[in-house]
Amino acid sequence: MRDEYRIWEQRQIDRGIDVEWVKERIKEFKVETPSWGYGDSGTRFKTFKQAGVPRNLFEKLEDAAQVNKYTGICPTVAIHIPWDKEDDYSKVVEYAAQLGLKIGAVNPNLFQDDDYKFGSITNVRPEVRRKAIDHMLECIDIAKQVGSKIISLWLADGTNYPGQGDFRARKHWIEESLQEVYAALEDDMRLLIEYKCFEPGFYHTDIADWGMSYTFASKLGPKAQVLVDLGHHLQGTNVEHIVAFLLDEGKIGGFHFNNRKYADDDLIVGSINPYELFLIFNELVAASLDSKTASTAANIAYMIDQSHCIEPKIPAMIRSVLNIQTAYAKALLVNREQLKAAQEANDVMAAEAAVREAFETDVRPLLEMVREEMGLNPDPLKAYLESGYGEKILSRGIGGKGWE
Amino acid sequence: MRDEYRIWEQRQIDRGIDVEWVKERIKEFKVETPSWGYGDSGTRFKTFKQAGVPRNLFEKLEDAAQVNKYTGICPTVAIHIPWDKEDDYSKVVEYAAQLGLKIGAVNPNLFQDDDYKFGSITNVRPEVRRKAIDHMLECIDIAKQVGSKIISLWLADGTNYPGQGDFRARKHWIEESLQEVYAALEDDMRLLIEYKCFEPGFYHTDIADWGMSYTFASKLGPKAQVLVDLGHHLQGTNVEHIVAFLLDEGKIGGFHFNNRKYADDDLIVGSINPYELFLIFNELVAASLDSKTASTAANIAYMIDQSHCIEPKIPAMIRSVLNIQTAYAKALLVNREQLKAAQEANDVMAAEAAVREAFETDVRPLLEMVREEMGLNPDPLKAYLESGYGEKILSRGIGGKGWE
Amino acid sequence: MRDEYRIWEQRQIDRGIDVEWVKERIKEFKVETPSWGYGDSGTRFKTFKQAGVPRNLFEKLEDAAQVNKYTGICPTVAIHIPWDKEDDYSKVVEYAAQLGLKIGAVNPNLFQDDDYKFGSITNVRPEVRRKAIDHMLECIDIAKQVGSKIISLWLADGTNYPGQGDFRARKHWIEESLQEVYAALEDDMRLLIEYKCFEPGFYHTDIADWGMSYTFASKLGPKAQVLVDLGHHLQGTNVEHIVAFLLDEGKIGGFHFNNRKYADDDLIVGSINPYELFLIFNELVAASLDSKTASTAANIAYMIDQSHCIEPKIPAMIRSVLNIQTAYAKALLVNREQLKAAQEANDVMAAEAAVREAFETDVRPLLEMVREEMGLNPDPLKAYLESGYGEKILSRGIGGKGWE
Amino acid sequence: MRDEYRIWEQRQIDRGIDVEWVKERIKEFKVETPSWGYGDSGTRFKTFKQAGVPRNLFEKLEDAAQVNKYTGICPTVAIHIPWDKEDDYSKVVEYAAQLGLKIGAVNPNLFQDDDYKFGSITNVRPEVRRKAIDHMLECIDIAKQVGSKIISLWLADGTNYPGQGDFRARKHWIEESLQEVYAALEDDMRLLIEYKCFEPGFYHTDIADWGMSYTFASKLGPKAQVLVDLGHHLQGTNVEHIVAFLLDEGKIGGFHFNNRKYADDDLIVGSINPYELFLIFNELVAASLDSKTASTAANIAYMIDQSHCIEPKIPAMIRSVLNIQTAYAKALLVNREQLKAAQEANDVMAAEAAVREAFETDVRPLLEMVREEMGLNPDPLKAYLESGYGEKILSRGIGGKGWE
Repeated sequence: MRDEYRIWEQRQIDRGIDVEWVKERIKEFKVETPSWGYGDSGTRFKTFKQAGVPRNLFEKLEDAAQVNKYTGICPTVAIHIPWDKEDDYSKVVEYAAQLGLKIGAVNPNLFQDDDYKFGSITNVRPEVRRKAIDHMLECIDIAKQVGSKIISLWLADGTNYPGQGDFRARKHWIEESLQEVYAALEDDMRLLIEYKCFEPGFYHTDIADWGMSYTFASKLGPKAQVLVDLGHHLQGTNVEHIVAFLLDEGKIGGFHFNNRKYADDDLIVGSINPYELFLIFNELVAASLDSKTASTAANIAYMIDQSHCIEPKIPAMIRSVLNIQTAYAKALLVNREQLKAAQEANDVMAAEAAVREAFETDVRPLLEMVREEMGLNPDPLKAYLESGYGEKILSRGIGGKGWE
Repeated sequence: MRDEYRIWEQRQIDRGIDVEWVKERIKEFKVETPSWGYGDSGTRFKTFKQAGVPRNLFEKLEDAAQVNKYTGICPTVAIHIPWDKEDDYSKVVEYAAQLGLKIGAVNPNLFQDDDYKFGSITNVRPEVRRKAIDHMLECIDIAKQVGSKIISLWLADGTNYPGQGDFRARKHWIEESLQEVYAALEDDMRLLIEYKCFEPGFYHTDIADWGMSYTFASKLGPKAQVLVDLGHHLQGTNVEHIVAFLLDEGKIGGFHFNNRKYADDDLIVGSINPYELFLIFNELVAASLDSKTASTAANIAYMIDQSHCIEPKIPAMIRSVLNIQTAYAKALLVNREQLKAAQEANDVMAAEAAVREAFETDVRPLLEMVREEMGLNPDPLKAYLESGYGEKILSRGIGGKGWE
Repeated sequence: MRDEYRIWEQRQIDRGIDVEWVKERIKEFKVETPSWGYGDSGTRFKTFKQAGVPRNLFEKLEDAAQVNKYTGICPTVAIHIPWDKEDDYSKVVEYAAQLGLKIGAVNPNLFQDDDYKFGSITNVRPEVRRKAIDHMLECIDIAKQVGSKIISLWLADGTNYPGQGDFRARKHWIEESLQEVYAALEDDMRLLIEYKCFEPGFYHTDIADWGMSYTFASKLGPKAQVLVDLGHHLQGTNVEHIVAFLLDEGKIGGFHFNNRKYADDDLIVGSINPYELFLIFNELVAASLDSKTASTAANIAYMIDQSHCIEPKIPAMIRSVLNIQTAYAKALLVNREQLKAAQEANDVMAAEAAVREAFETDVRPLLEMVREEMGLNPDPLKAYLESGYGEKILSRGIGGKGWE
Repeated sequence: MRDEYRIWEQRQIDRGIDVEWVKERIKEFKVETPSWGYGDSGTRFKTFKQAGVPRNLFEKLEDAAQVNKYTGICPTVAIHIPWDKEDDYSKVVEYAAQLGLKIGAVNPNLFQDDDYKFGSITNVRPEVRRKAIDHMLECIDIAKQVGSKIISLWLADGTNYPGQGDFRARKHWIEESLQEVYAALEDDMRLLIEYKCFEPGFYHTDIADWGMSYTFASKLGPKAQVLVDLGHHLQGTNVEHIVAFLLDEGKIGGFHFNNRKYADDDLIVGSINPYELFLIFNELVAASLDSKTASTAANIAYMIDQSHCIEPKIPAMIRSVLNIQTAYAKALLVNREQLKAAQEANDVMAAEAAVREAFETDVRPLLEMVREEMGLNPDPLKAYLESGYGEKILSRGIGGKGWE
């Protein structure tokens, strides 16, 4: 490995890359995994139950700790309320700490209660809107208890048929509701507003695209930002362009990473279109180097949100983390002076090559070296698979906690 | 109403339409409703349970009989095995007959057994393929018992990741399996092979488009045909063109009607894009008038396949049936000589107008008259809603039989 | 016709519709046609030249006057600079006035000069940006000369490859450039900012969606608004939702009407998906009745923007105007109390029916009556075709002015 | 480089890869470039003319020879009739031979003659169909003269509006016409039938998808096969699945390579989604190793079909060739035993990893070594750019031959 790395390193140095800086950046980079990603989930046709799935939040944290143990970059875990509701959150914080973890974003659930059949904060019935607001306030309260600074809001509200809902009235209810929620945020907390083009609503979604999230977030104030889920766009959307636009506006607060070929398929990050993932990180790295956007870029929450229907949960999560890390590492290898020079010369071929060349670079020698320097096994997935943990948890049996 | 109808009729006669022929065609036209359309279904996020949902096949038939009672054109009901599995099918047939119904297509279920997690007839494990074939043979046997002539096959098999499956090996297993199933069909039975672009598989579906269904059906023989589900295409697909192509090949055997804006949304037929529905019927009517395609057109099974997540099931079904009937009635009003003349003159504007004009025609006066002549209430949905049936079935309670 | 209309009117009155109010609204409704819609255009593969195409702006105005003569609702004509550049605009205004016309929106062209190969106001070269800004300032000047109040900006800028352009730098250049343009607007002028998801840029478009137009327009001020072109969205976009959202924000200023099945196909309005067109008007009518949004709704510029590749230009334009008028008329027939009541009761079926019922209504009797009352021929297209104008202009020959 | 290659080679040997076999395969692999790819092309909005573009077929061949000189794998050039029509094809063959080239596929043009405004072989006018057939027969004749064995047919026929054309009548005309063309093929010639979902037709395309190409090709006989253009699919299409399906049927004859993000964008191959390109080659390599499909795989024509609107033509072509070679090289590095074992164990993660691992491998060391062994410069694009050829041809001036 040493020889391979040395040759690799030399090639990068020859390209004008500051490899030490790259390594530092990689070591600082963190990804948050979601508690619900360790549980069972499926399609509307079937949820295939897996053996060994955690039965409660504590076991989810144990699984998340494994991901952190082998990747070294996943010290926080997002939670979903009420899926992860507990009576005493101090025990959660304490147990997480024992495992080397902290609680990350708190995610309200506004789509599974029967009351939300026709919407939560967009419901025509004031008592349902009240309930939904109260639930979000409860989540802020939980966030305070667990030391979380982020409320990550996916509003599943929408309609299935033309005429079913009054678009503008519903918009007003969102504005009203979020104002109340926003007012309850502490100064160092943020509300991240997700958008999604469809599903579960099949005619319209109340927060359908980044423009709507952005409008709501802008009206609320600086503590509200947009959350970009990679699976929530229509086919053909140039996501990296949206990311760059929001970075420039100081209005992107985080990601929900996953991948898709069709709709919100929630597959392993980078498994379908790795180049798109890289191009997104290319924008993030560029923005981090620009004084105008650096602070926004520095505060982005990198979170995974997937649904592992047929694959084992922990390996799928490790794979996703590694794919994100890979895309980030490649983006760090873009020679930005070269790229800028090509852009300024309108040299299309050279500019494209500057970006693609970084993507084509095999960063495995680099990442293996970084992991060694971090005291990790250079092959995290192999190390996990050989650890016996996957077999040990089979004793949990079938029927662990899923999306309900 | 009489006056309105008379003026309406005169306008059509003036346009050169044989209104009596149109009325006859409408009276002969039948739509099949699915047993599972009366049960609960939902999205992967939530199935909202409705009160009054049937608890077994017999109650589903009762609900289907209501749809037939008020629309007058739904005398058959498709069943899904094992959702509708019964010990004694003679009782099913008998009860259906009492309700004025017959059993229509038999639908095997190859996606909900745990064994099918990695595919049914495309599974690498021969014992799973055997089980799936046996299930289809069982369905043929049930079809014989209930007097059904159609096996309607949706193969949910697919993969979620590149590399997961061997496309060509899986194709061979489909061919092998369907040959065995085909051989078990009686002479007057048909195997209709559905296709779907994605879901539940998110990387590939083994029968992904009409071309694959067509290839399999062609190799099997004349008793195998393609089934077109309106929600199973990629965005932008010109479905009416596919329908015309398959009609010309004698290889379309039936439809699963529903509507969608995004993916396989399974909404009420004609609720999102009524013009597309009309254009499909425009091809069907044209083909029925052409000696080369008339017999294929005459044997098409018009079936509904929907998922009523938030709306009441029986009214949604009636609405769908009426929307189909409306589209068909409008297609019958195209002046085909005029259309042909415009096409032959390359008069784009006139040809387009000939088709659109029929679509823009309000056929409610016609359908109301036809219903009166059939001894039906001219407004089937209103009549049903006022009948008290919807309230009566509430005594069934919550928790009726859904998609499992 | 009288009898038919009387029965039609009675049915509407019975439904609770104020037919006189509907007729008034229809009479007030205006649609603007584009000068370039009368010229030759095509695909990248071929522009089929038509005989009789106007050779200059004056002949384009003559053709537009025909559309206004027969439809009665097209008194303004949008122009495109430099396609319609003239030395003396007072002659243009005068000739238009003789024809009963006024000049509508002025459209700068930022995509056909060789200098714009790598962008206009997003070009890395300051002198090209300067040229593009100057061109827009020139258009404002022309607008003043012709009495136009609207600058309609489609920015074709974009890139074809990852890396080619710096998204954020280009965004800043747009902001800078538009500020200068905005500052030159008179108090009663508006800058309408169009967006488009792709083409001619095939990797990214600098103003790709409504959210970007909205952000730019918001930063500029109240005289800047969003322009919605119906063909500029990704597949599946719910355009009526965007329209409602922008109405609520007071930030929609106009439409470019056309229709498409795939990309920016620029087909006759309403020819592919008439229901979508109706649903857009449904939002516009609703907003016009709401005091919060009425003034925004009242100031919307309804403009056509099409490319008639194979059909005759004037008939295609008349057809488009009539289809827009039809959609508007149907939207006026929605019983809004009924709709609101159904929405407030979460009665999905009734709410959907309230909207669809209006769409299914045949408004030809109404429109024919309105036209008679306006002193027009009830069938504008037929009247035009029989007028002999189409034959008369053949003397112009082949090779009139197209998109260049 | 030697050290780097040796380490690279060792890593592959350790993975179980037969590197010598891989190198042999890469050396045998050929890509055909299109004469029209060296000329000017653009969008419907503008064709930006470039200096140095070839003025005739002979100059196009000179440019193609440069691509072959530096890549070493492009010895054939596809021609387009009438764009490349010549009086004496023996001179063409001779000049090509001097340049080390042969003529590849002959492409009829059925879309630019005014007669084809409403279709070529689907035109209602028999004389136009006759003309189109005659043109194809002429192309076969030219193919004989230039020693080409492939007629590559893209049928641009389609309609813009519902009703405009009779789908089934047009289908029959295609069948009739192609039968006559097929009959004129020599025994060792092939007719490759392309499909395309839309453009220039915006409502329907007569050969819209692979299923239609396949049906026509199957009816014609073994000398007719499907041609897959990577930009001719709807969003979301799994192209590699279609390729595998057609390989299994023995019915894929060639590719038109390019890339797209939205529609038929005709960008540099592999520039938008390199993983998709790799997955397609993954199927091709797998099929080449399977006795059932090996001969089909061995006879596939790998052709480029792009439109270089803003980038210099020759460098863009070299880049495309290299990207194809890269994808192929990576596909050769899949450990097929490992992949098969993972598939047979339903080990989703391992199967996915087996494929992705090959993609992530940096094959530049390998390709550089292969080129050296072939006597080529290891960096073909750099070598071309430094050769001075690009500057030399500027003397051709502006206004070379484009798509017309």
